[in-house]
Amino acid sequence: MTSDPFSSRCCRVALLGFGTVGSAVARRLAADDTPVRLTHIFDRRAAEKRRSAGLDAVSWTPDIDEVLHADADIVVEAIGGVEPAATWIRAALAAGKSVVTANKQVIARHAAPLLAFAAQQGRQLRFEAAVGGAMPIVRAIGDGLAGDRIVAIDAILNGTTNAVFTAIDATGCSLAAAVRTAQARGYAEADPAADLDGDDARAKLAILCALAFGLRVDPSAIGGISCASTTAADFTRARLRGATIRQVAHADFDRVTATLTAWVAPIEVASTSLFGRTVGPQNAAIITGAHSGEIGIFGAGAGGEATAVAILSDIAAIARDRAAIVPPPVLTANFILQTSDFVPAEVAC
Amino acid sequence: MTSDPFSSRCCRVALLGFGTVGSAVARRLAADDTPVRLTHIFDRRAAEKRRSAGLDAVSWTPDIDEVLHADADIVVEAIGGVEPAATWIRAALAAGKSVVTANKQVIARHAAPLLAFAAQQGRQLRFEAAVGGAMPIVRAIGDGLAGDRIVAIDAILNGTTNAVFTAIDATGCSLAAAVRTAQARGYAEADPAADLDGDDARAKLAILCALAFGLRVDPSAIGGISCASTTAADFTRARLRGATIRQVAHADFDRVTATLTAWVAPIEVASTSLFGRTVGPQNAAIITGAHSGEIGIFGAGAGGEATAVAILSDIAAIARDRAAIVPPPVLTANFILQTSDFVPAEVAC
Repeated sequence: MTSDPFSSRCCRVALLGFGTVGSAVARRLAADDTPVRLTHIFDRRAAEKRRSAGLDAVSWTPDIDEVLHADADIVVEAIGGVEPAATWIRAALAAGKSVVTANKQVIARHAAPLLAFAAQQGRQLRFEAAVGGAMPIVRAIGDGLAGDRIVAIDAILNGTTNAVFTAIDATGCSLAAAVRTAQARGYAEADPAADLDGDDARAKLAILCALAFGLRVDPSAIGGISCASTTAADFTRARLRGATIRQVAHADFDRVTATLTAWVAPIEVASTSLFGRTVGPQNAAIITGAHSGEIGIFGAGAGGEATAVAILSDIAAIARDRAAIVPPPVLTANFILQTSDFVPAEVAC
Repeated sequence: MTSDPFSSRCCRVALLGFGTVGSAVARRLAADDTPVRLTHIFDRRAAEKRRSAGLDAVSWTPDIDEVLHADADIVVEAIGGVEPAATWIRAALAAGKSVVTANKQVIARHAAPLLAFAAQQGRQLRFEAAVGGAMPIVRAIGDGLAGDRIVAIDAILNGTTNAVFTAIDATGCSLAAAVRTAQARGYAEADPAADLDGDDARAKLAILCALAFGLRVDPSAIGGISCASTTAADFTRARLRGATIRQVAHADFDRVTATLTAWVAPIEVASTSLFGRTVGPQNAAIITGAHSGEIGIFGAGAGGEATAVAILSDIAAIARDRAAIVPPPVLTANFILQTSDFVPAEVAC
């Protein structure tokens, strides 16, 4: 309960990657009146980016070792991709720094050993930004609902696909045209395959399965249906039923039979439902708890500003209590996975 | 990231109050396979309640001093009301225990000194259950969105009034009849005035203003309009405009002029909006951040089970890191409050 979530001790932050997310984090740290200070920025094109960024009080470098051995307390990893990001996160922890990352691919694949190593080092690895943009779903599941037994998660986790689907539904345009619009607005990568095929949502869903069910899920084992062949005609047909289509990520876990059902697919949802009303690059999730029933959360799921909010919240949490104990997870791979064959025609979210 | 949020060290819990919330907490602690152990229950009618509860491994007592001086690590306060709850929370902290409370009245009025005392004692005072039932809004605002600058909050914070309003809208019955139904279902107190008049929502809104804006708001200074004179005819008129009526708690803070606008009142909302779709004893909130835009959260807002989820999540957080540093808030009373005169006819939530 504080308007200044940062402790009074100055906390030094080094940033890896000055792309959309990294530059948004840098702007916030430079602008905000906090005791958190951005001291280093690593970027392969440091010299060029420094010229346009105007953050002259910061040490810019294209040399990762220079940043990893600098005197920062916290390293923010905003590079993306599995490698070299995973290696550098481990190196930062080895150098005694806490790490904040937005990297869903690294966390989906390597969270357990990295979190165990962080705990062993007496440091923290936080990743609110890896799932749901500004929507604090990692804390909601890992902390706020720790007192419940979560039984199911349904979520829209990929802002790009949601923006594309919303555009098709609104204008009747082709998927290709909607992708071009999303690219022009900065919501879609040059290659939208990871978004439409579901790789992005699968990685995020695997993270949520670890948080909610304690399962080590290989994201690539999660099946489903790609959104790449969804057409305007599909939306027209859905509309006749009062529905629309969303890329839904679903997971439910039956603890008695140790059976996880998980998939990512384009699914019909009622137009008036939470998911039907989740438009543009937004994310939304319904978490079903055995004791609390359905808890919903929604908000900006993509974009540098939204992701920066999640990263700054994680920085604040570390700055507040740098000696906090975060017990490493105990994940099991001892479960049955039901996937593609279990995709329903519609969900009621 | 763990399926077992509790640390491996056994953590001993004493419970104050064996009413709806307290008994739900006790049942969960007795049933769940966690290293958290319920050791003591204080209740004025301990002997009688023990007979029906069947928790024979626990020490029951009508003597508060016996519990405060027992060897529990955490005291759960589930008595309600300002006194003696506030005195007992302080006494528990003085005795070296951390405290988890569902008490919105105590937190709204005494959070700052109690949290400062907890920090001085090296202990924690947690209160997720004081606002929003199972919906983890205290963490969302205080922690998950710490990296944003929150500018406004709109919320349905009183499950009883929401259940009453939903019933009037669905059946056209009188407010008195809807209150009787809610009482029969366990959603309303014998005297529903605190719910309908807005005292309950005002206390919760004051807590959210402290978390979001760093303001010390006297809940009784928050004005608005009582829901006690809302009629079935009001709902009929609203329906003609595609709307319904909800008890909405609103706060926005202009940091430049240090002006807080805050009120609790029955307000028209679109039937298809989040608030319009929030039915029965549910809660919902839209938090507007300067950087992340609107973040929404909703879920079970009332009832022993939902409140117990929030309390168990707080117990888990303390059990995980009993030495965690929770800096006390710095709240200011130096602001202008705009209230009753600023209630609008409708809100778009």
